[in-house]
Amino acid sequence: MSTSRLIGQLIESLRCLPGVGPKSAQRMAYHLLEHDRDGGRALAEALGKAMQEVGNCESCRTLSEERLCELCASERRDRSLLCVVETPADVQALEQSIAYQGLYFVLMGHLSPLDGIGPEALGLDMLERRLQNGEVGELILATNPTVEGEATAHFISEMAHGHGIRATRIAHGVPMGGELEYIDSNTLSHAFAGRQDV
Amino acid sequence: MSTSRLIGQLIESLRCLPGVGPKSAQRMAYHLLEHDRDGGRALAEALGKAMQEVGNCESCRTLSEERLCELCASERRDRSLLCVVETPADVQALEQSIAYQGLYFVLMGHLSPLDGIGPEALGLDMLERRLQNGEVGELILATNPTVEGEATAHFISEMAHGHGIRATRIAHGVPMGGELEYIDSNTLSHAFAGRQDV
Repeated sequence: MSTSRLIGQLIESLRCLPGVGPKSAQRMAYHLLEHDRDGGRALAEALGKAMQEVGNCESCRTLSEERLCELCASERRDRSLLCVVETPADVQALEQSIAYQGLYFVLMGHLSPLDGIGPEALGLDMLERRLQNGEVGELILATNPTVEGEATAHFISEMAHGHGIRATRIAHGVPMGGELEYIDSNTLSHAFAGRQDV
Repeated sequence: MSTSRLIGQLIESLRCLPGVGPKSAQRMAYHLLEHDRDGGRALAEALGKAMQEVGNCESCRTLSEERLCELCASERRDRSLLCVVETPADVQALEQSIAYQGLYFVLMGHLSPLDGIGPEALGLDMLERRLQNGEVGELILATNPTVEGEATAHFISEMAHGHGIRATRIAHGVPMGGELEYIDSNTLSHAFAGRQDV
């Protein structure tokens, strides 16, 4: 497509980024080459390093270049609370929004038998060992409110109960600022079922 | 923002791409780390190489890792036709659309005195030497139909006339598939002024 082999390769490689099609890839490549070589070099280095060095935290499975991620290594977090989420991005979202002081366990996905993703692929054996050692008092299930996320939450809650540990699920209902009129019926029925005294 | 330093750096670096804000950068970083390390590594390599090795063609100024770009080096192109465009992406667009067999001259911008972009920054001295050597019979001005693009085309056409070389400007008018009703009046007046016998 491009008359230059290197530019053609760059455009092709940029398409591995989510949401980047041929036109945006071309725009990105020319932008970097014409206006921001330093940015391009810094990106190349950051990418190479991250791809090479980022692994998974030995304790919570989130992405981390250290053996233990910052949260698991911190002495100020409450080790009796463990919040189970699907992805590292979920950890970010929770850390930015709420004053949660416990730890996380990151599944890096959800149960999906049709795709061959079973309990081992989600590190549930690791989670089980963690429930066995008696440190965890409450397991907060914050998987996504999708069919697979709900199934995963149910599976893990059974596991927690097997060890006599309290399992809680984050509330589903009408999002703040939303309008009842436009909320789907499934969410509305959850909001009704989960109503609380005021 | 991210709990991992390397991931934070990667997210920050991704923002040098045009149209990528903090949320997309985070999505891209996690996508590569979780699902496409090979793609990320290939991108890092393609980026590093392109930033390092791509320079400008000595003849037409377009981006190229060779001393002469593929088009300028080709023996099958008609050296009597020279088409002036603003960017390498314009060359791509023309090459993909029309059966033009001449050569290009890429300004890598347009005249913009307020930003300090004068004739030298656009390589017009190079262009002038090329007009002097007598090879070029027609200079086709394909800069953008913006105020700066028009001014640039006007400036270069004067230069061509100074050397007794024919200068032509690509037609402006109603785009194919457009509806007259929705075309701006400036374009309409160009379309009327440029009418031809059928």
